[in-house]
Amino acid sequence: MPVATLKWRNDALVLIDQTRLPSELVYETCRDVETVARAIEELVVRGAPAIGLAAAYGVVIGARNALESTEVEFSKSVDEAIARLERTRPTAVNLFWALEQMRQVLAQTKGQGNRAICDELLTTANRLFIEDQAICRRMGENGAELLPETGQIITHCNAGGLATADYGTALGVVYAACEQGKKISVFADETRPLLQGSRLTAWELHQSGVEVKVICDNMAATVMRREKIACCIVGSDRIAANGDVANKIGTYGLAIIAKEHGVPFYVVAPVSTLDISLASGDEIPIEERKGEEIRRGMGKLTAPEEVPVYNPAFDVTPHALVSAIVSEKGVARAPFEPTLRAWAAATDRE
Amino acid sequence: MPVATLKWRNDALVLIDQTRLPSELVYETCRDVETVARAIEELVVRGAPAIGLAAAYGVVIGARNALESTEVEFSKSVDEAIARLERTRPTAVNLFWALEQMRQVLAQTKGQGNRAICDELLTTANRLFIEDQAICRRMGENGAELLPETGQIITHCNAGGLATADYGTALGVVYAACEQGKKISVFADETRPLLQGSRLTAWELHQSGVEVKVICDNMAATVMRREKIACCIVGSDRIAANGDVANKIGTYGLAIIAKEHGVPFYVVAPVSTLDISLASGDEIPIEERKGEEIRRGMGKLTAPEEVPVYNPAFDVTPHALVSAIVSEKGVARAPFEPTLRAWAAATDRE
Repeated sequence: MPVATLKWRNDALVLIDQTRLPSELVYETCRDVETVARAIEELVVRGAPAIGLAAAYGVVIGARNALESTEVEFSKSVDEAIARLERTRPTAVNLFWALEQMRQVLAQTKGQGNRAICDELLTTANRLFIEDQAICRRMGENGAELLPETGQIITHCNAGGLATADYGTALGVVYAACEQGKKISVFADETRPLLQGSRLTAWELHQSGVEVKVICDNMAATVMRREKIACCIVGSDRIAANGDVANKIGTYGLAIIAKEHGVPFYVVAPVSTLDISLASGDEIPIEERKGEEIRRGMGKLTAPEEVPVYNPAFDVTPHALVSAIVSEKGVARAPFEPTLRAWAAATDRE
Repeated sequence: MPVATLKWRNDALVLIDQTRLPSELVYETCRDVETVARAIEELVVRGAPAIGLAAAYGVVIGARNALESTEVEFSKSVDEAIARLERTRPTAVNLFWALEQMRQVLAQTKGQGNRAICDELLTTANRLFIEDQAICRRMGENGAELLPETGQIITHCNAGGLATADYGTALGVVYAACEQGKKISVFADETRPLLQGSRLTAWELHQSGVEVKVICDNMAATVMRREKIACCIVGSDRIAANGDVANKIGTYGLAIIAKEHGVPFYVVAPVSTLDISLASGDEIPIEERKGEEIRRGMGKLTAPEEVPVYNPAFDVTPHALVSAIVSEKGVARAPFEPTLRAWAAATDRE
């Protein structure tokens, strides 16, 4: 695991400010709900599992800051914290899943007093954090079996240690394979507009000693044509019951290009990323972000002020383009729905 | 036609410095061969037809600057100018085609004296310029027939007025259609790493009153899925005898994505872009440019210093993915080879 992207320390949530990588490794300390919410909105912390964990700790912070209030006001403050955190980003379901876990704690601890409720919220956030670490390891092991002894892969965005409590989803598979002695090197799509691939994936893989080369998103097709690529591996922000996968914009195009070249396309995500309440990916809400991220993403003006810009943050890859979905429960292949439903049901029972 | 990207004025070649758009409209005046060569290398001027014209005027400049030399030294200077200009960029064949035209002038004017040779070189460069204008118009008319009365298209890189002596190749088709009263709006891929789409295509279409929206390269797949897209239209830097098309990196991926969505994929280029000496696109030399264009393309560091970057400037789209090739001679469809050979032969006879 390259680095701890988020941790609970001295009664505060400490985050790596991912907007400043790779130039600077700077930490931001969050001591109130609004700071956590903005950190999520502004991508100081990002990656579906990490967003969920940050939000869970955000609820803890909201509760602790209301500790001296009346029980009624305390309860109101915590509800407001959850509502604020829910409004940060619409696509990654892990956010809503984590907040739902916190809501269940509130229901179960009703009337036990502010201090006890606070303690239970923190215990739960810590448990989610530790579980995410274990889940990353299990996903890594499950996915590593799909990789050859020696090979090159392509990944998109960042689904690594910077996106989770441990060493990641898609990159967890790479790390696990490398730990098993496999020789895996990675082409990292830079991932416009916010360059999570070139800024974050390249940075953390290099920190961990995994061979990585940065390409622009539009070079993946040429790389697949010219190089032997074992597979593409990506994370996900939400997976519908039929196996349609929402992930960072550009994933869908990459999957089409992989199909054209006969390159397997793997999605790695914890069961908390499943949203089996949605029949298909058409129902997944897609966040549209400010055009300025494209127009002035790296400081300089790169598109005329007067010209409109379209900036969807995610896209949906139809399940027909997905070779396998890897979770902590195993490896699902088409038809995905029975396996995904079984995973979700098994997790609910735990 | 939005703006004159290059012109011969006061015995010098005046270029729009395309590296500074869209922030500033600044002209660079070239009075020696090295300045022209660097302008081509550094993309002050770019676009296959415009590169060819700039190189032709570069030869004129080399000749004029040697006017007072002996005939032997004059001849040597002009040869050196051609050799220097040939070394600027390897992929766009229009460069070599234009320099070959100038070389033929030298052969035909041998012994006529420096002044007469100079005059003939300038006459030829001016002729190529005027022909390129006429060719753009004919390509525009030929291509406009492929567009619906109302529709949206996607283009990649810049194949417009900034890439030619007139209103472009791919964008010429759009301008011609709009002049015919068709309502065409354009999604412009930003085109990493040097952003010719967001910086140049968006700028010139907006200047000309054509509706345009900028997207990142990795959004084209989602746009094709969500919107009704009439076709993709791109230019080319070199087309092999079988119809394989070299063009700006990202074109190949876009063509694959177009096929997946049943969207026609059109290539627009003058006959001077044909290289029927090459059987297929595998033989086209692909320029690889500095990693710094990706790593620090917009000022800020966007990939770790220590991580390698792969930066091919072009890719090759196999002819199977091309719906039609439009030139000043007409519209070619598969099988491309007979038509492309006939176009080349007819042009040689002219």
